[in-house]
Amino acid sequence: MIYKLEVERSKLNNLMDMASKAVAKKTTNPILSGFKFSVKDNDLHLYATDLQTAFHGLIKNIIVEKVENINEDLFVENIEEGAETETLFEEISDENIKPEFVVDASYFIDIIKNLSFENINIYLENKNIKVIAGKSEFLLPTMNPEEFPEIVPNKVEEGLITFDRQKLLSMIEKVIFCSLKDSENMTRNLNGVYWDFREGGYLTLVAADGYRLALAELSMDIVNTPPSFLLSLKSMEELLNVLRSSKTEEIELFFDGSRVLFFLDEENIEIILNVVDATFPDYVRIIPQAFKTKVITSTDLLLNVLKRVSIAAKNDQIKMEIKDNIMELTAKSPEVGLAVEELEIEKEGEDIMIAYSPKYLREAIDHIGTSEVEFNITSESSQTMIKPVGDDSYMYIVMPVRLK
Amino acid sequence: MIYKLEVERSKLNNLMDMASKAVAKKTTNPILSGFKFSVKDNDLHLYATDLQTAFHGLIKNIIVEKVENINEDLFVENIEEGAETETLFEEISDENIKPEFVVDASYFIDIIKNLSFENINIYLENKNIKVIAGKSEFLLPTMNPEEFPEIVPNKVEEGLITFDRQKLLSMIEKVIFCSLKDSENMTRNLNGVYWDFREGGYLTLVAADGYRLALAELSMDIVNTPPSFLLSLKSMEELLNVLRSSKTEEIELFFDGSRVLFFLDEENIEIILNVVDATFPDYVRIIPQAFKTKVITSTDLLLNVLKRVSIAAKNDQIKMEIKDNIMELTAKSPEVGLAVEELEIEKEGEDIMIAYSPKYLREAIDHIGTSEVEFNITSESSQTMIKPVGDDSYMYIVMPVRLK
Repeated sequence: MIYKLEVERSKLNNLMDMASKAVAKKTTNPILSGFKFSVKDNDLHLYATDLQTAFHGLIKNIIVEKVENINEDLFVENIEEGAETETLFEEISDENIKPEFVVDASYFIDIIKNLSFENINIYLENKNIKVIAGKSEFLLPTMNPEEFPEIVPNKVEEGLITFDRQKLLSMIEKVIFCSLKDSENMTRNLNGVYWDFREGGYLTLVAADGYRLALAELSMDIVNTPPSFLLSLKSMEELLNVLRSSKTEEIELFFDGSRVLFFLDEENIEIILNVVDATFPDYVRIIPQAFKTKVITSTDLLLNVLKRVSIAAKNDQIKMEIKDNIMELTAKSPEVGLAVEELEIEKEGEDIMIAYSPKYLREAIDHIGTSEVEFNITSESSQTMIKPVGDDSYMYIVMPVRLK
Repeated sequence: MIYKLEVERSKLNNLMDMASKAVAKKTTNPILSGFKFSVKDNDLHLYATDLQTAFHGLIKNIIVEKVENINEDLFVENIEEGAETETLFEEISDENIKPEFVVDASYFIDIIKNLSFENINIYLENKNIKVIAGKSEFLLPTMNPEEFPEIVPNKVEEGLITFDRQKLLSMIEKVIFCSLKDSENMTRNLNGVYWDFREGGYLTLVAADGYRLALAELSMDIVNTPPSFLLSLKSMEELLNVLRSSKTEEIELFFDGSRVLFFLDEENIEIILNVVDATFPDYVRIIPQAFKTKVITSTDLLLNVLKRVSIAAKNDQIKMEIKDNIMELTAKSPEVGLAVEELEIEKEGEDIMIAYSPKYLREAIDHIGTSEVEFNITSESSQTMIKPVGDDSYMYIVMPVRLK
C-alpha cells in the first residue's frame, strides 16, 4: 500500500514560503531542519519548528489515494525504467503506515519551486517519498515523523485579541531592526521584541540593542489586558515572514502564559511562539522627557544627505550642527575626505553640536514614514528622540556618540 | 589661483562606470586604485589603469575657469562657515599648477552617484579637490598625478579592423565564462581570451579552463590579417564593461604587436590592453571531428530540466542516458535524493550513457541562444561538442566525467 497525494504546486510553494523561517537554522538535531507533512481528513498539514518558534498550516482538500503499488498509477509507468529508481525503492511491509513524512526543508523548497508542472503527485513509502510532476521524478529520503516534535496549538479562549494584519506588520517593521542580533545568554533579553500591553487597550512593541530603542504603539479595542511578554528575534522574523506573505485581513492572538499563538483564520495558519523567559529593561525610564533643542526637517532631503555624508563617515561619526534655521551635517575619514551638507530646519530651543553613528541615524530616518521628521535633543551626551511629525505612535531613541 | 570645473553629473557617472573595471582591484600601489582626471582644451579626460588594462575617455567642452580664491564663486560663500573646511584647505602657492588630479576611484564613484544635483563644480587645489553640488560639499584628498602611469594610445594606422559593437559584445559573452578564473603563473595562458585571426577574414575568440572550451567565430571584411593575440580576463572584463555601457555602433581595433587598442570614436573612448606574453593551447586539435552520437533537443526544456536535476546532483555529476528518442537525465546525492527527468530528442548514431558536471552542462546551455541545441558525443570519456542548431559560429566543448 502506497499513499498518493495530489497537490497544487503554487499552494505548496506559498505554504512552504510562510513556514521557511520557523525551521532551525543551525542545529545538531537534523529533524528540526525538516518540514513535517501529515494528511488528516484529506487536508495536507505542514509543521516546522526549532522548538522555540513553530509553524502549522494546511492545504485543504488535496486528493489522497491508496494505491497497491506505484505501477497502478498511469503517470509512473516509466519510473521503473531507471535502474537507480528500483534499487532505491523499498518494499512496503507495514499496512498501517501513516500518511506523514519529514523532508529537508531547504531542498524540498528548491525542488518544488523549480518544477514546471502545476500538478504534483507525492508517493509516500517507508523511508522515501517520490515526487512526480510531468516527466520530472524525485526520490527523496525522509526522516522519521515520530521523532518530529509535537506542535499542539492549545488555543486558550481567554485573552483573545484581534489585529489588523497590515497595522501589526507595519508596527513590527518599525521596531524589529533595533533588536540585538546576537543571542548570547547575558543579552538574551534584547535579542527580541517586547510586547507590552497596558491598561486602556494599548499595545507597545519595543526593541533595543543597548545604544538605541524603537517603540511603536497601537490602540486597541480590548476588554481584558493580557500580560506583557518577550518574543525572540527568530520568532519575530517568522511572524513577520507570515504577515508579509499572508492575504488574511485579521490575525488573532492567544496567550496561555508561556506560549503565544497567532492564528490566521482564513488561511488556517498558526504560529506558536514560546515566550522568552528574561526580563526586558524598563524602557519607559529611557524615554527622555525634557528637551534642549527641537528640530523639524524634511525626511527625504535628510535621507539623501545622510546617504552622501555616510560615505565620508565610513564607520565613524556624523556631526550635526544646529544653528538658527540650518542643520549642517559633516563627516570625515582619512580615506574618503570631508563631507559637508546643509539643510533648512525649523528649530525650537538652543543651538547645539552633536554627533551620531551613521548607521543608527540613517536607519531611524528610513523608518519615519512621514514627510517631516522631528529631532528632540536633550544634550550632546544623552538620548535623542526622533519621531515622525504628526504621528505619535512611533519613536526612536538613540544615544549620541562623543564628538571628535 | 584655483581651477574650477563645471561638469554634468550624468556624463561623469557614465564615464566612470565604463572606466571602473580598468582600475586595479588589489594593489600595493595606491595610485592604481585611482582615477586620473586631466583638463586639456576644455575637455575633461579620465584615465584608469592597472598597468595591463587601461581606459581613457573624456567629456567634451566642460566649463573651466580660474578663480582667484574659492570665495570669488557665489556658490561657495557658505563654505567657510564650517571650521573643518578652513583648516583642511591649503593655500595655493604654485601658479603653474596643472588642471589635473587623481582620486580614489571607488569613493569618487560612490559620491558622484549619490549627489542630488546635476550641476557639479569641482575645485582643484594643491592636495585636495572640493566637489560642490547644490548644498553638498566634499573635500577629497588626492594623489600626485605625476605618479600616475602614462597612458599613450599610440594608434598604429596599419591593421585596423572595425567591429559591430553588438556582435563583438555577443561573441565575448559567449566565451568569457570559460576562462580560467585564477591567474597563477603556470596557467596564465588560460586566464584570458585568445583572439585568433585567420586568413580569409575570420576571427575566432577562444576561452578554456582545462575542462571545457568555448569558441565563437566572426567573418569580417578585412584585407590584412593581423597576428593573433591573448588578452587577460581582467582586460576582457573591462572591454566587456565598456561594450555593454556604450552606445557606439562601431568599434575600431588597432594592434602594434604588444598592445591592443579599442577605439570608440563617437564616445572618444580608448581601451588599451597589453597582450599576455604566453602561448594559448592549440585548440584546433581539441575540436572533435568524428561523433558516435548526435542529439538534438529543445534548449528551454533542457535548461529547465537541468535546473531541477542540478539540485539533486549538488556538486557531483548529472548522468545522461540517450536511448532511442529519449534523453534521461539523472542525478543523486545522499542529502537531497534522486532526480530523474526525461526529454524527447532527435538522435543519430548509437545509444550512450555519459555523465557531466552540472555547472559545465548548464553554463553551456545558458549560452546557446537558439531554440534547439545539438550534442555531438564522441565517447563516454572524450570531448562532447555542444552547439546551437542552425548557427555554426559557436561551439562549446566539454569533457565528460567518469560515470559513477
